[in-house]
Amino acid sequence: MIPISPLNTKSLAFIQAKIDNKTKPLGALGALESLALQLALITAQRVQKNSDFTLSENNSSGQINISNPAMIVFAGDHGINENSVSIAPSAVTKQMVLNFLQGGAAINCFCQSNDIALTVVDCGILQAISQDEIPQVRNNAMKPVNFVEHRLGAGTNDFSAKPAMSITQVKQGFYYARQLINAQISQGVEILLLGEMGIANTSSAAALMSALTSLSVEDCVGRGTGITDEQLEKKINLIESALKRVSVSEQHVENLTQESVMLLLSELGGFEIVQMVSAILSAATANIPIVIDGFIVSVAALVALNLDNNVANYLIFSHVSHEKAHQLLLEKLMLAQTFTDSNNQALLNLGLRLGEGTGAALALPLIKASASFYNHMASFESAGVTV
Amino acid sequence: MIPISPLNTKSLAFIQAKIDNKTKPLGALGALESLALQLALITAQRVQKNSDFTLSENNSSGQINISNPAMIVFAGDHGINENSVSIAPSAVTKQMVLNFLQGGAAINCFCQSNDIALTVVDCGILQAISQDEIPQVRNNAMKPVNFVEHRLGAGTNDFSAKPAMSITQVKQGFYYARQLINAQISQGVEILLLGEMGIANTSSAAALMSALTSLSVEDCVGRGTGITDEQLEKKINLIESALKRVSVSEQHVENLTQESVMLLLSELGGFEIVQMVSAILSAATANIPIVIDGFIVSVAALVALNLDNNVANYLIFSHVSHEKAHQLLLEKLMLAQTFTDSNNQALLNLGLRLGEGTGAALALPLIKASASFYNHMASFESAGVTV
Repeated sequence: MIPISPLNTKSLAFIQAKIDNKTKPLGALGALESLALQLALITAQRVQKNSDFTLSENNSSGQINISNPAMIVFAGDHGINENSVSIAPSAVTKQMVLNFLQGGAAINCFCQSNDIALTVVDCGILQAISQDEIPQVRNNAMKPVNFVEHRLGAGTNDFSAKPAMSITQVKQGFYYARQLINAQISQGVEILLLGEMGIANTSSAAALMSALTSLSVEDCVGRGTGITDEQLEKKINLIESALKRVSVSEQHVENLTQESVMLLLSELGGFEIVQMVSAILSAATANIPIVIDGFIVSVAALVALNLDNNVANYLIFSHVSHEKAHQLLLEKLMLAQTFTDSNNQALLNLGLRLGEGTGAALALPLIKASASFYNHMASFESAGVTV
Repeated sequence: MIPISPLNTKSLAFIQAKIDNKTKPLGALGALESLALQLALITAQRVQKNSDFTLSENNSSGQINISNPAMIVFAGDHGINENSVSIAPSAVTKQMVLNFLQGGAAINCFCQSNDIALTVVDCGILQAISQDEIPQVRNNAMKPVNFVEHRLGAGTNDFSAKPAMSITQVKQGFYYARQLINAQISQGVEILLLGEMGIANTSSAAALMSALTSLSVEDCVGRGTGITDEQLEKKINLIESALKRVSVSEQHVENLTQESVMLLLSELGGFEIVQMVSAILSAATANIPIVIDGFIVSVAALVALNLDNNVANYLIFSHVSHEKAHQLLLEKLMLAQTFTDSNNQALLNLGLRLGEGTGAALALPLIKASASFYNHMASFESAGVTV
C-alpha cells in the first residue's frame, strides 16, 4: 500500500484569512466555511505535490478545484443473506444494478440533477450480468451509465459460518479499485463520490464496525431497509457468532495492524466494501477528496482509516442516515480529522436510508457552493464594504 | 387581497402511491419524499386550476414542474439603527447591494452554482443607487443581476419612537411586489426563492414576531450578525418600548385581523419585509412554491400567514439558521402546514447566519432532486424489481 501523505496545513492561516476576509460576517457561512478550508487544503496539497512553495494571493493555486465529480456505485452480494437477514432476496441486488444501468434508480436521478458522472461496478453480485442483459438507458434525458465488471466471485460466503472471502480476493479487489480510481483521476476527476448496493450488506458492515471499535454488535446493527424484531435478533446473533469465530475482543481492537485489518476484511467483508476501502485509499493517495455516503460507505472509510490514519482529512461526510449506528460511526471518523472543529456534523440530515450513494450525490451542490464562495466571492477591500 | 386557494389534497393518495411505488424501500428518501408530495400537490393545483379532473397515470400533470427558479433579494434600511443595534452602520446595506450587482457576494456565488436567476430590489435603502453607480458584473463567469428600484422611502423611521412607515407605504410595497412576482411568473418562473439585506432588520423582524405570537421579545431576538451583550439589551429594550407604543398584548394576538396585521406592518416593518410579505402572498395565489430563507424571510412568512392562512402549504423551509428565534418560528410556521408530518424540519442545518437568500439558494438542489426522483425514477413494476 502506498502511504497517504498527511494533509499539509502550512497554508491553513492563509486560507482561513481568505475566508474571513470575504464580504460576510465572520463565520456566517457555518459548515460551508470549514468545508472550504478542507477543500482548499486538499487542492493545495494536490497542486503543490512536487513543490514546496506556499500559497499566496498572487498564486492561482489559492483556488479550490473539484471539477468532474464522479460517483462510483459498488455492488456485491452477501452469503449471509442465506439466513434472510434482509427484507429482500439477494436477487434484488442484480435487479437494482440493471435498474441503475437503465437510468431508473434514485441515484440516476440525483446524479443527473447534480451533473455527476455515474459508474456502476459489479464487484461480485450473485449472477453476472450478460452482455445482452445490459440495458439501454431507458430515458433519453438520463446520461449513459458506465458499467465495470470487477467480480471477485458470485457473492461472498456466509461469514457467520466461514470467511467471507480469501485474502487473495481482498488483494484482487484492492487492485481492481486502485486501477479504476487511477483511470478516473487520469480522466480529470477531482472529487470522488461513493455509493453501494448489496442486499444484506449492513450485516457485513456492522460486523466490521464492531470488530474495529469497542462497540457491541447491538450498537452497530440497525434495521437496514426495514427488518422485523425477529430478523434483527437473528442478525445480531449471526454477527456475534462470526466475531467469536474470528476471536474479536477489546484487546484485539487495541492491537490492530494492517495485516489484521486485511484479515478482518476477508473474514467479514463484502466484495463491494473491499473495493470501496481501496477506492478511498487510492483517492486519498492522489489527494482527491472523497464524499462518503451512508452507513456502509462510512464503514469502508473506517476500515481505510485503520489501514492508514492519514485518510481522515480527505473525507467529506455527506449525510447522517436514519441508521442509528451511523451517527456513532461518524463521530469516530470525525475525531480522526485534525483540522475541523469538534462539533462538526455531516452536511445533511434528511432521514435518508437508501444507500446507492444518494446522500453523497445530494450533498455535492453544497460542496460546489463552498468552492464557489471560496473561489469567487469578493473581499471587503475589493467590494468596498466597510464593516 | 386576492384570497389564496387552499391546497387541494384530493390527489394526495395518488401521489403518495406513486412515491411508494418507486424502486426504493418505503420512506427511504426521508424528507425528500414529503417534499415531493408537497411539490406534486402544488404543481397539480397550478395545472388544474381551471379544471376539476383528478390526476391519473396517463396524465402528464402527474409531474412536478419547478422550472426557471428565481431568487429575489429585497433590500431596505431601518431607522432603528440610529441607535446602533447592529454591528454595522446602515451604509453597509447599500455597499452590499452594490456588491450583489457586481457579482461579489455569497448569494451571487450560490445562485451561479445552482443555476438560479438573481434579482435585487431596492425597497428603500438609505441612499438610492444612481445610474452611474450600477456596476458591471465584475466577474464574467457570473450571470448578470437584474436590478429593480421599488423604493418606499430613504430607510424606515425609527420604530422604537414612531411608526416605521405609513399604511400607504405598506400598500405601495404590496403593489410593487405583486407586480414584480406576476412579471416573473409570466416569464416562466415556477419556483420562487426569497432573500433579504438590511442592516438592523433582525430588530424589525423580532418586533413583528413578538407582536404576532405570544413569545417574549427576548425569545424573538438574537445577536443578528454578532452584537455584544450590551447591544442585545438595548435592542430588547427598544423593541419592548415599540410594542408598548402599539399596545401589543396577548389579547391582541388572539384577535388579529387583516387590518391589524397591516397596521403592525406599518408600525414595526421594514420596506423589504413588507415587499416580501406581498411576494409570498402573490406567489401562493399563483400556486407557485416559495423557498423561505432565514429568520427575516421566515418572519415575512409569518406575517403572510396571518393575512391568509392558506399560504402555509406553499412554503418550503430551506434551513434553520444560527439565530435562536428561528427554530421557534419554524415550528410555528410548520404547524400551519396541513399535510406534512409533525416532525418536519427545515432541509438544511448548516449554522448559517448570513441572510441574502443564501440558505434558500443552497437548498434548491435538494428541491430539484426531489422533483427529479418523483418525475424520473422507475416503479418496481417498470424496473422488474421484485421486493
